[in-house]
This record gives sequence, structure tokens and C-alpha cells, in this order.
Amino acid sequence: MPNSNFAATAEHRYFEDYIAGAVHEFGSIAVEEAEMIAFAKRYDPQIFHTDPEAAKKTIYGGLIASGWLTASLMMRLYTEHYLSHVASLGSPGVDELRWLQPVRPGDTLSTRVTILEANRSRSKPDRGIVRSFVEVLNQDREVVMSMRAVNFFLCRENP
Amino acid sequence: MPNSNFAATAEHRYFEDYIAGAVHEFGSIAVEEAEMIAFAKRYDPQIFHTDPEAAKKTIYGGLIASGWLTASLMMRLYTEHYLSHVASLGSPGVDELRWLQPVRPGDTLSTRVTILEANRSRSKPDRGIVRSFVEVLNQDREVVMSMRAVNFFLCRENP
Repeated sequence: MPNSNFAATAEHRYFEDYIAGAVHEFGSIAVEEAEMIAFAKRYDPQIFHTDPEAAKKTIYGGLIASGWLTASLMMRLYTEHYLSHVASLGSPGVDELRWLQPVRPGDTLSTRVTILEANRSRSKPDRGIVRSFVEVLNQDREVVMSMRAVNFFLCRENP
Repeated sequence: MPNSNFAATAEHRYFEDYIAGAVHEFGSIAVEEAEMIAFAKRYDPQIFHTDPEAAKKTIYGGLIASGWLTASLMMRLYTEHYLSHVASLGSPGVDELRWLQPVRPGDTLSTRVTILEANRSRSKPDRGIVRSFVEVLNQDREVVMSMRAVNFFLCRENP
């Protein structure tokens, strides 16, 4: 499992630990067929996500993960390894979410996060805004998903 | 439940049924605390998503849904009521995904989709590209989430 190179562990991480230009890579998480089907039956009931046999006759040639499951599995890794467990204040949203390659049963996903910007808030000086480019890779190092994320964090040092 | 005004039901819907300027509204789906917690424990284990007691001491003042659960519940409605069940070819991604208001246990969500553009593909003339603005509303008609979606659909009439 690739390690992240943060100065502080997630339990002690604050805005100041997010440095523009840094690249953090972490994982992994397995994509299980049973979870793919259960997720899709509840949230995205299209046959190429729910029915392995019927999926063979679609343009995807077999079962693929709901893009929202891929995003959710990414979020699991992102929460555990990238966000702070003491200073995370949530996110207003994401941009340019792209599903680039099908995710299949048995795939193993990892995540690479490149910090684009880290700016202290002017209106709320106890916190900062971090903009990141997030990629999800499979076991063949193909990028299966990418997005731009925005996260708010409390600062360790307050004015 | 608000009804959609499509000319064809989802079982008989093709690219030609997606008309720029049309607004489709449908729902509803309940946000259950047990589902919020189960989803977050697997995919987004932050205390304001997983622990109702600890969440009271956060900036959110109580449990809120993972934004990815809100997106997934939206997708359930979107798949059932907006996509075609015979002509949907998937999506390359979404843009400007925004979590605008907290989603709480007991909320009821519905979805409003405004079709922005519907264009036949030049490179693959058997299909079309539909761009939509998607809003998720709660029971008080507040917009809790929005995004721009792109979907591909097969055409009914082929050249």
C-alpha cells in the first residue's frame, strides 16, 4: 500500500499540513461483485450495474460499478487517509467528476490526490480552503475516475 | 408525488423524448437515519455522518447525510424516473456538484431536472447527448444539492 507523506497523521492534521503541489497516494480498496450489485439495486438500478448476465449484452460487455459507488469507495479512502480526523469541516462540492474507465468486479482501487491550492480564508481566519485534484486508479494503474475537490479545514495556529 | 411530463414512459423513452427547456420533477425518497449511518460507516466515516451524539458537538449541530448518499439517493430517482430503461448508455461524468444545505434524518427528497441541451451526436449518429441541470429538493422545497449531468441515449429513429 502506497503511503502518504503528510507531516502529521490524520488524527493530528490541520490546514497547515496541506501544501500546494504535494501528491498523496493511498489505498487500497477491493471492488466486490456483491457490493456492486447491492449498491446498484438501491441507488442506481440499471442492468449493467445490477445483473451480470444481462450486462453481457450491453455496450459494457459485463457488469460495471455504478459511478456513484466508485465515488463512494474513493471517499472511504479519502476520509481515512487524506482528510483530517480533527479539523475537517466538510466540502461545498466537487467539479469535473469524470468516470473514465469501467470498474469491474475484482478490481482494486487506490487514490492519488494532488493539492492544487491551499489558502487561508479571509472571511473566517480560523480555517483554510484546500483545492485538490483527485484520481482513482485501478490495479493496472489506469485512472478510472477523477474530480476536483474543495475542502475546508481548521487551522492549527489561529491569529 | 409530482409527475414527470415525458411523452414516453421510461420503458419506451429514447433520445428524441429529451427536449431542451423541459423541466421534469419526480420523487420522493425518504432519508432514514439507519441508512445514513450504514452508508457513512462504509463510505464516509466522519463523525457528523456516523454518530448522532458526537455530531451534536460539530458545526452541523447534529447528524447530516454524506453528500455521496444524497447524490446516490438522487441517482435512484434519476434512474427510475428520468433515464430511459431501454436507451440509456451511461454518463461520462458530472460538473458543479454542490451540497447546498444539510440533509437530515427524516427528510424527504425529490428531484427537478431541467434539460439544458439535447444534441444528436455527429460522430455516432445512432445516439444523442443530453445535458441537464439537476436539483435535489427537500420537503420544504429547499434545494439541498445541484449538479450538471451529461447522459448518452440511443435514438428511436436512426438515419
